[in-house]
Amino acid sequence: MPAPPLPQQLDELAELLSRMCSAVAGALQRSTAALLESRERLAAQVVAGDAAVDALRAQVEDVAAEALLFHNPVAGDLRTVVSAIRAAGDVERMGDLAVHVAKVVQLGRRVPDEIRDEIAEMSRVAVELALKTADVVRSRNVIKAVELDTDDDAMDALHEHMFEVLMAPSWPHGVPAAVDLTLLARYYERFADHAVTVAHETVYAVTGREPDAVPI
Amino acid sequence: MPAPPLPQQLDELAELLSRMCSAVAGALQRSTAALLESRERLAAQVVAGDAAVDALRAQVEDVAAEALLFHNPVAGDLRTVVSAIRAAGDVERMGDLAVHVAKVVQLGRRVPDEIRDEIAEMSRVAVELALKTADVVRSRNVIKAVELDTDDDAMDALHEHMFEVLMAPSWPHGVPAAVDLTLLARYYERFADHAVTVAHETVYAVTGREPDAVPI
Repeated sequence: MPAPPLPQQLDELAELLSRMCSAVAGALQRSTAALLESRERLAAQVVAGDAAVDALRAQVEDVAAEALLFHNPVAGDLRTVVSAIRAAGDVERMGDLAVHVAKVVQLGRRVPDEIRDEIAEMSRVAVELALKTADVVRSRNVIKAVELDTDDDAMDALHEHMFEVLMAPSWPHGVPAAVDLTLLARYYERFADHAVTVAHETVYAVTGREPDAVPI
Repeated sequence: MPAPPLPQQLDELAELLSRMCSAVAGALQRSTAALLESRERLAAQVVAGDAAVDALRAQVEDVAAEALLFHNPVAGDLRTVVSAIRAAGDVERMGDLAVHVAKVVQLGRRVPDEIRDEIAEMSRVAVELALKTADVVRSRNVIKAVELDTDDDAMDALHEHMFEVLMAPSWPHGVPAAVDLTLLARYYERFADHAVTVAHETVYAVTGREPDAVPI
């Protein structure tokens, strides 16, 4: 069977990556719900569901390899294929981070009441970033990709704030809760960071330049 | 100027990746020395030195793109090029993690005496993993790559042990030190994890199979 034409393969790569982004956004949203509502079965669903994300990554790599093999793409097309391989690795990692959150739930840990809003907000920003990235990957809209940096700044501020709360002398929940929340905050922050990286990969594919070098 | 022959480019990719691994091993070793001896200037050197790792990654991607463009490699050669792109991302991240450790030093944080040995040991295992990975990448020795999993198990055990120490009711240093150490332990563990991933990429390139599927 002959390979599909290159433009069709590039569209398929964008579609697969976009689906990966949507999938991990959903996974993190469910992980957070499981965390805040102590729903262990929901957490188990997130853990089990990660295999589907890994399978999508494998599909991206298969399509990319096929595109390289049969079409020997050049310039922007080559960048698109290479950046899809890199981006798929980032999105797979986002799925792993959603699983990490779910595993905290499975350990039976609970989030102290006064920090619930912060966790919910970190999750909201991270999920929104992943959904925007899904859109950027599908539309290859460079302007939108650069907007994501603002959302990521919001995440960094939330992350900093969380440490202030944990490290305040008034923190009443002791070391174990602080350790859990330190890791949780880091999972959300890393998730968001990978989403921004994926959007940047798209800018690179479209423009051939890293986002910092794109004058907008 | 014509592109170099493909075998020469594949050797160059292995050489660049191996140099990246050695560079980040050195960076983490220096970061840890800076941390344990409160040497802020050494920490600053690690932070400044990360640009060289980023530059090596860019070189990997340039050579890989050139190899794809001019030689349209197939089968094992194609896998080698694709896995070099993936691996370079992992090693760059290892460099970032060494920088994270250095930045803890720059914040003026100190490691409590009773946890110094644990930090030194996590660093030793992580640095050794990175150096072994440098060797695997250069030699493409699949047997050696699988050995790394044992070292990674040692790292996981150290990581677990660290949390037990931090979360024990007898922990005397309060929440802020516990939060710092939680993040530090995670940096070392992630560094080691990426090293193992890079070794696995090499197995994939050589054998066409993920390490779990390689019967050894």
